[in-house]
Amino acid sequence: MEIIRIPRIMREITKNLKNRAKSIGFVPTMGALHDGHLSLIKRAKEENDITVVSIFVNPTQFAEGEDFEKYPRDLETDSEKLKKIGIEYLFYPEAKILYPNGYSTFVNVENISNKLCGKFRPGHFRGVATIVCKLFNIINPNRAYFGQKDYQQTLIIRKMVEDLNFDIEIIVCPTIRESNGLAMSSRNSYLEENEKKAATVIYKALLEGEKLLKSKIKPSEVTLKIQEILRKEPMIKEIQYAGVYDPLTLDELDEKTNKYLIAIAVKIGDTRLIDNMLVELN
Amino acid sequence: MEIIRIPRIMREITKNLKNRAKSIGFVPTMGALHDGHLSLIKRAKEENDITVVSIFVNPTQFAEGEDFEKYPRDLETDSEKLKKIGIEYLFYPEAKILYPNGYSTFVNVENISNKLCGKFRPGHFRGVATIVCKLFNIINPNRAYFGQKDYQQTLIIRKMVEDLNFDIEIIVCPTIRESNGLAMSSRNSYLEENEKKAATVIYKALLEGEKLLKSKIKPSEVTLKIQEILRKEPMIKEIQYAGVYDPLTLDELDEKTNKYLIAIAVKIGDTRLIDNMLVELN
Repeated sequence: MEIIRIPRIMREITKNLKNRAKSIGFVPTMGALHDGHLSLIKRAKEENDITVVSIFVNPTQFAEGEDFEKYPRDLETDSEKLKKIGIEYLFYPEAKILYPNGYSTFVNVENISNKLCGKFRPGHFRGVATIVCKLFNIINPNRAYFGQKDYQQTLIIRKMVEDLNFDIEIIVCPTIRESNGLAMSSRNSYLEENEKKAATVIYKALLEGEKLLKSKIKPSEVTLKIQEILRKEPMIKEIQYAGVYDPLTLDELDEKTNKYLIAIAVKIGDTRLIDNMLVELN
Repeated sequence: MEIIRIPRIMREITKNLKNRAKSIGFVPTMGALHDGHLSLIKRAKEENDITVVSIFVNPTQFAEGEDFEKYPRDLETDSEKLKKIGIEYLFYPEAKILYPNGYSTFVNVENISNKLCGKFRPGHFRGVATIVCKLFNIINPNRAYFGQKDYQQTLIIRKMVEDLNFDIEIIVCPTIRESNGLAMSSRNSYLEENEKKAATVIYKALLEGEKLLKSKIKPSEVTLKIQEILRKEPMIKEIQYAGVYDPLTLDELDEKTNKYLIAIAVKIGDTRLIDNMLVELN
């Protein structure tokens, strides 16, 4: 596996590959790779001639006071995992190369960036859209892979790709969970054992919400029930949002329909956790 | 010459050309082609295997109350001019294809977009950056050509290309002028004969400014002199800005240096005219 640190060199490599009619799968990550990431990477490897993984803890998607500094970084362990899967290229740029002094261009997907997580993380999705746009322009992949755990992010990336006419297929892969249901996340490493156990209530609330929606309970009532379940867990310090939403607009849903997003963001201790489930009725 | 109206088809054409190692030159325009445009197009033709010209009056770069509706449109005359030069492809999309219902992604180059013209045309450069980003993603050219008459636009496009890591060379071509010095512009068609004559004062002011800067007069004094020259022309209804600026930051320059931008925006009747000159001292 080659580790590439310079955008210009990364670009030349993928450009040459594409000139030789090789397809390129791309998995952007912030590192601290877990089985969720690895499932995306394996899928990319299956569907493309060459796979590029990027590891970049993107400063512009962290709001003031968030965990940019303490976000887990471990290149060695990550590299080992990627080598084991047989990945060809790891793109590992420095922040000052991607955001040099005087950097000033930002991509913003309006409306959906301000809902759900966007309300609690000002500028977060602008940072996400901007770095993904930059990485797409550097790597120019045929396909890019994202996890459904970050549902709102996948919606925003899809919208950006459509609106800005990128020639890239976006593939969203299922959330990977611990055996107790907790969605895998690099931020789970912040949790103490008792916090991890408490965090399983999130998945339980999603499952209960799914069951209720499938038995035709009104979404607004399902939202109340989900919030009630979460409130019963004393280790949850804050419920940022929790309920049933329109999967396209991310607005709260009051009335019955046939496609729902159940989405939850809570704080356990200082750790912010999100999870979601799409529910489709026939 | 083929006229292509569908982004997907345009993309397939240039993609196939690039796969066959053809270089692509791209000239984005809003039509009403004059000798300024034609000079860019000829240059693109000289430097590339294939030239694509786009004609699209981009709604997102017109502010409220501006001339979007009355902006000159004449596909037939434009097509004739392009055929005569021997251009291979004219991209001529409809607004509702590039900005369908629910469109919501915008590219913004901060800071320099708010100076000079940006102060008087809110949202203008956000619209410019967004449409150029979209066209770049559809056409994926090797080189793109812009006129120096829109100096601030060229600065913003260059910054966007650098910041968002586009793999496109931006080429800025000299302003083309009428024999009386008036910079060519599609908006000159709005001017009555006496207004056209009055408008020549803009170039005279630029030339006087250049002369004064070259004789080491302080930029702030040159600014005053330029404004004085413009104020003497009674047909100038409004001076939006006029003076000596830093060519990179677009801030007003008070102190002597070795590279200046003289830039002017005025209204003659209802017609807004801009012009500029770069002055480099040895």
